[in-house]
Amino acid sequence: MKISARNQLKGKVVAIDHGVTTSHVKIDIGGSIITSAITKTSVEELKLEVGKQVYAIVKASDVMVGID
Amino acid sequence: MKISARNQLKGKVVAIDHGVTTSHVKIDIGGSIITSAITKTSVEELKLEVGKQVYAIVKASDVMVGID
Amino acid sequence: MKISARNQLKGKVVAIDHGVTTSHVKIDIGGSIITSAITKTSVEELKLEVGKQVYAIVKASDVMVGID
Amino acid sequence: MKISARNQLKGKVVAIDHGVTTSHVKIDIGGSIITSAITKTSVEELKLEVGKQVYAIVKASDVMVGID
Amino acid sequence: MKISARNQLKGKVVAIDHGVTTSHVKIDIGGSIITSAITKTSVEELKLEVGKQVYAIVKASDVMVGID
Amino acid sequence: MKISARNQLKGKVVAIDHGVTTSHVKIDIGGSIITSAITKTSVEELKLEVGKQVYAIVKASDVMVGID
Repeated sequence: MKISARNQLKGKVVAIDHGVTTSHVKIDIGGSIITSAITKTSVEELKLEVGKQVYAIVKASDVMVGID
Repeated sequence: MKISARNQLKGKVVAIDHGVTTSHVKIDIGGSIITSAITKTSVEELKLEVGKQVYAIVKASDVMVGID
Repeated sequence: MKISARNQLKGKVVAIDHGVTTSHVKIDIGGSIITSAITKTSVEELKLEVGKQVYAIVKASDVMVGID
Repeated sequence: MKISARNQLKGKVVAIDHGVTTSHVKIDIGGSIITSAITKTSVEELKLEVGKQVYAIVKASDVMVGID
Repeated sequence: MKISARNQLKGKVVAIDHGVTTSHVKIDIGGSIITSAITKTSVEELKLEVGKQVYAIVKASDVMVGID
Repeated sequence: MKISARNQLKGKVVAIDHGVTTSHVKIDIGGSIITSAITKTSVEELKLEVGKQVYAIVKASDVMVGID
C-alpha cells in the first residue's frame, strides 16, 4: 500500500519493549533512533523482531520543530 | 526546555513552503528528509530559514511502523 | 507496504477540496463518509481523484469515543 | 456537546480489551470495525460495554489516505 | 455528546484567523490562551465567533510535558 | 529548546499514574487540570514528581473545539 504520510523513513528494528496493550519499537534509521508506540497486536501481525527492515511512518502534521 | 517527546532528531532546514496558515518545513536529519507541517506563526517566531540547525520532534505515539 | 495503524478502512473518494498546502479528501467507506486532511503534494503523488478506491488510515490512539 | 472533529461515525461497541492505563475499544460502524485506544478511566466514565451505541470520533488531520 | 478525551477545558473564543481550508481559533481558558487549528467548515458549522463559550478538547496522548 | 507547538501551558504536576509503558501525568495550569499520557521513560528522564513546575505542550492541530 502507498500512503499519504509525508515521512516514511527506512530503518531496522533495534529493540522492542512490550506493555500490556502498547509496545515500544526502536528503529535505527541510519544514525538516528526513532521510537514508535504501537499496539502489541500490530507488533505480532507485522511479525516485528530485532533486525527486521521497517519504515518509521509519520504524518507531517505530527512533526514539531525545535531550536536550541 | 526539555520535553517528553521520545523523538528529537537533530538536522538542518533545507526548504520551507508557506500556505496561508500552515507551512511545510523540510529537515535533513542526515540521510533522511523529514517534513513538518507547523503554523506560519511558528516559522516566524522560531526565525526558521534554510540552513538553520533544528530538531524534528515527534511523540512515540505518532510514529507508525510499516513493512514491505 | 503493510502498516501498524489499526484502522484501514476501504472506500472510494467522493470529493477533494484544495487549500494552499492542505487538501480535504472525502471518502465513502460504505455508508459513512470520512474526511481526511493531507498535504496537497500527497494528493498529487497518490493521483487521488473522485471515484478512486482508497483506504482511510487511522492510528487507534487517534480515535476518540463519544456517547449521546 | 457538539465538536469540531470532522469524523463522527455512529456504531456499536463489539469488544473492549483493558491494559493497565490504556484500553482498546472495537466499534462496528456498519460493515467496518474501528479500533480506538483510550484511557481506562474514559471507558469507566462513559460506562462503555459491548452493545452500547457510540461514536468513533477522529480529526480530519489524523486520517491518512492509502492506495494499493 | 460526552467524549473520551481527557481534556475538556472551558473557555471563550478571543480570536479566529482563517486560512483557505484551516482556521486558527484562540481560546482563553482563564489565564491561558489555547490555540486550536480546525477546518474552516467546523468554524462555520459550530458558528464560532469571538466571545462564544467553547471547550478546548485534547486527548491525553496528544499532550507532551516540558521542563525548563 | 524552543519549539513550534503553539500551546505551552505553565503548571504544576498534581498526580502521576503509571501503567507498564505509559504514564498519566495530571498538571494544574491554574484553575484547569490537564492530563498527559507519556512514556514511563519520559517521566523518569524528566524526573517528574508531584509539585514540579512543568509545561503542558500541545500542537494546535491536536486541539478540537466543542460547544454545548
